[in-house]
Amino acid sequence: MADLRKDPVTGRWVIVSADRQKRPSDFNLAAPTMLGREQCPFCPGQESLTPPEILAYRHASAPNGPGWDLRVVPNRFPALHVEGTLDPQGDGMFDRMNGIGAHEVIIETPDHEKSLATMDAREVGRLLGAFRERIVDLKRDFRLKYMLVFKNHGAGAGATLSHPHSQLIALPIVPDFVREQIDGARRHFENKQRCVYCDILHQELSDGRRVIEDYGDVVAIAPYAPRFAFETWLLPKRHGSRFEDAQAEYPSLARALTSVLARIDRALERPPFNLIIYTAPSDQDLRDEWHWHVEITPKIQRVAGFEWGTGFYINPVSPEEAAEALRAVKL
Amino acid sequence: MADLRKDPVTGRWVIVSADRQKRPSDFNLAAPTMLGREQCPFCPGQESLTPPEILAYRHASAPNGPGWDLRVVPNRFPALHVEGTLDPQGDGMFDRMNGIGAHEVIIETPDHEKSLATMDAREVGRLLGAFRERIVDLKRDFRLKYMLVFKNHGAGAGATLSHPHSQLIALPIVPDFVREQIDGARRHFENKQRCVYCDILHQELSDGRRVIEDYGDVVAIAPYAPRFAFETWLLPKRHGSRFEDAQAEYPSLARALTSVLARIDRALERPPFNLIIYTAPSDQDLRDEWHWHVEITPKIQRVAGFEWGTGFYINPVSPEEAAEALRAVKL
Repeated sequence: MADLRKDPVTGRWVIVSADRQKRPSDFNLAAPTMLGREQCPFCPGQESLTPPEILAYRHASAPNGPGWDLRVVPNRFPALHVEGTLDPQGDGMFDRMNGIGAHEVIIETPDHEKSLATMDAREVGRLLGAFRERIVDLKRDFRLKYMLVFKNHGAGAGATLSHPHSQLIALPIVPDFVREQIDGARRHFENKQRCVYCDILHQELSDGRRVIEDYGDVVAIAPYAPRFAFETWLLPKRHGSRFEDAQAEYPSLARALTSVLARIDRALERPPFNLIIYTAPSDQDLRDEWHWHVEITPKIQRVAGFEWGTGFYINPVSPEEAAEALRAVKL
Repeated sequence: MADLRKDPVTGRWVIVSADRQKRPSDFNLAAPTMLGREQCPFCPGQESLTPPEILAYRHASAPNGPGWDLRVVPNRFPALHVEGTLDPQGDGMFDRMNGIGAHEVIIETPDHEKSLATMDAREVGRLLGAFRERIVDLKRDFRLKYMLVFKNHGAGAGATLSHPHSQLIALPIVPDFVREQIDGARRHFENKQRCVYCDILHQELSDGRRVIEDYGDVVAIAPYAPRFAFETWLLPKRHGSRFEDAQAEYPSLARALTSVLARIDRALERPPFNLIIYTAPSDQDLRDEWHWHVEITPKIQRVAGFEWGTGFYINPVSPEEAAEALRAVKL
């Protein structure tokens, strides 16, 4: 069982392993090598290498065997466990709770070689539906306050397996950066009675310099103050606080994802990237203030101590340059 | 000239390159290879490879030639430039200013092969004095609000040169994570009329499980909620908000730095690490609320999309385990 611990200065929560069996020689946590196709636990026929599936889209085939389009399984090495109670406690001046939560893996396709950039929009739409289905199910557990859907693509972005997959971590607290975004959006709403993301959309669409492409219901932009080179936001035009309530936007979002990632692949020679879906916390009604969205951050820069220690990023590529380069890609 | 741009949601400032000469083919920003000793711009005899020195501790030798113990030079590829005016402007709903600031490199020793872990305490004391001297000088420029002294050691921590060196970035704004720490410390002080770091010191010294070593005026602890495995804080026992006013603590801090880094080198086989000195912002009187300190973060974990996107860290080594392992090292 992991610990959730709160930093007494910043209020930031971290997951800390409480496994006391480790020895100093176990501390060298080098990156594992990527598994080849033969040993891939996510390929059809290897279903016994994952824990039993939670959800699958199948062609009348039996669970935990081949014959599927998409599978959701628990993470074999979960950061959080669903069993037990949160049991929040003080420890002198410090605060902790048990590491309760869920950690699931969404295997996006049976095809080991595909990627979001090469899937068709129908396949990506199915994936968005699976994210939604899992979020809606996990929200019934009142202990879980935030559902974080994300994707690490490529070793440089933290992936340990190359077979296309995403992850969902359900947390008993709202993570720090999400809280900061929500706080900022709330301040903006209190000042102006308008959603900050709606304001951004309005300005970017009339300005145009940072628009990568308009996909109808969803727009891809290079944000004004990006932390990372080629950071891309996918913003739904229709205001809404929850990804899981935005099914009407999924076809447009699916087109945006495949197209933007194909553009990034061409412009930057298939870089590692991270993708995160920001939805509203489960137990907060932020219908006016918050606007669900998707963030894609290619990882082509080295990140140094400066960034780690300060939260202050140096981005060598302006968003105007990045948007221009991505617009110029011929698909 | 770079831009400083503010994210309209979170209020986070980033440095964005405004160099419009780049082409898409220039965007592949792979890690440069480390230079060997022959081409090292920081080795004695190669002084012409750096910009002219700002400060040097010399043996009656001429500037910008050999015969020095320590040199400070401008960064050849600075993130910020000292010439010009801030010229803060609105751009529709967005906020920007010119990338005014200073970016200096402190060459810690003429010896290419040394490190903070193998220098003697006198050499490290001299380095701390150089940090102080540069901070005090730069604080006379009222445009500069925060002096960030940091060190990237090893390619895995973002270093591009292996010769021992630190960096100083002087910023016209207070970086995000520093602001968060200050806000947290201020909240604690408002609640309790006590400094949060003094409270942490008190609890950790009486508890003992997370104390790595007590160096007299400075204590090394593994913090209660560390983001990184083996994250280490060096806290001065005497309350004070400014590193540059804490000369009395430099001998103890120098011993703490060499000893803790030697312990980390032994326990973790010389890992890459980042080191940051947190002092008070230049124009804020935080004498009660803020407590200067040093943070060392070995980089032995892979950092994945989850951490990047959420500010929520998964740390596989508890601070109790880390402190125990570092205490057990025989120096």
